[in-house]
Amino acid sequence: MPHIALGSDAPGIRGLFAFRPETAHPLNALAEVLLRGESTLSRGERELIAAYVSSLNECRYCFSSHAAYAAAQLPEGMTLVEQVKRDPETAPISAKLKALLRIAAAVQRGGREVREEDVAAARAEGATDLEIHDTVLIAAAFCMYNRYVDGLATIAPDDPESYAARAARIVSDGYLALLAESGAAPRP
Amino acid sequence: MPHIALGSDAPGIRGLFAFRPETAHPLNALAEVLLRGESTLSRGERELIAAYVSSLNECRYCFSSHAAYAAAQLPEGMTLVEQVKRDPETAPISAKLKALLRIAAAVQRGGREVREEDVAAARAEGATDLEIHDTVLIAAAFCMYNRYVDGLATIAPDDPESYAARAARIVSDGYLALLAESGAAPRP
Repeated sequence: MPHIALGSDAPGIRGLFAFRPETAHPLNALAEVLLRGESTLSRGERELIAAYVSSLNECRYCFSSHAAYAAAQLPEGMTLVEQVKRDPETAPISAKLKALLRIAAAVQRGGREVREEDVAAARAEGATDLEIHDTVLIAAAFCMYNRYVDGLATIAPDDPESYAARAARIVSDGYLALLAESGAAPRP
Repeated sequence: MPHIALGSDAPGIRGLFAFRPETAHPLNALAEVLLRGESTLSRGERELIAAYVSSLNECRYCFSSHAAYAAAQLPEGMTLVEQVKRDPETAPISAKLKALLRIAAAVQRGGREVREEDVAAARAEGATDLEIHDTVLIAAAFCMYNRYVDGLATIAPDDPESYAARAARIVSDGYLALLAESGAAPRP
């Protein structure tokens, strides 16, 4: 049961968006830019970074959500997401993405954990400064979203179908459109 | 030296805002709502939570910044900020704020660290659900800002005067106004 009375039975972060629309907007605008805005990293790759960091933070709702969003936008689907969750080093992904996931894992432990060698390794595999920047910020942002969702003890549905259904709509419409549709608007 | 070429010598998160204006806007909009928007917690109290979490994450730039912003908005000034940094339990603050800082410290360790007892203790001291929500989200957000700033190894000035000067402008104009003034606007 959530730690506070949310006034709806929307699961995970969606119940928090409905409770506090003023913060829901910037939180969704940030996700939209980072995970769906113009980038040389594909949407599937960025959702994979989000899902991986959520798994490291053991946030079941965020992992299930972003795993579904990644799977829906990667040719290899959920099989690849599960391989990356188990061990990115042995997963069938590019050397560049492995290096970026190493940076993401360092950020998850703490900002000061990212070493110059980690960044150099990503750059040696072709990562640009913007890709490195976005990887750090995606990882940092999920250290926020994960703590927000679990810090208030929101509910994570068990049914994988609910996450897959949401994924289809995130892929087609995006974070901000879905938020607007949910009716979350600033309090009068 | 920062891990990536930021193209400016703006310190801390300000160099990152200039590098990536698309993410700068939602990041500042979130800070503006959480730290300066309408609330039954004073702006000084909210900046104190931000500074405290930044000290737990050992983020020198964010701690110095938000310590200055808190000090500028609390009658007791920097003395109180330093006391809270050392030990909130013995600092001369209300029992409610102590309970909220205990929740913030739990969030800093991880979302799953917040216990029902922590929330009940805050509620027993008069904290509302909205105050508990905002405390969790401020703490979670600073787990992001701190990782963003240190994960890219940005520069933190040594001179306390530079933080105090910035504080005066944050207090008078706020986060979004200062961002707009800095010229950080979406890339063409």
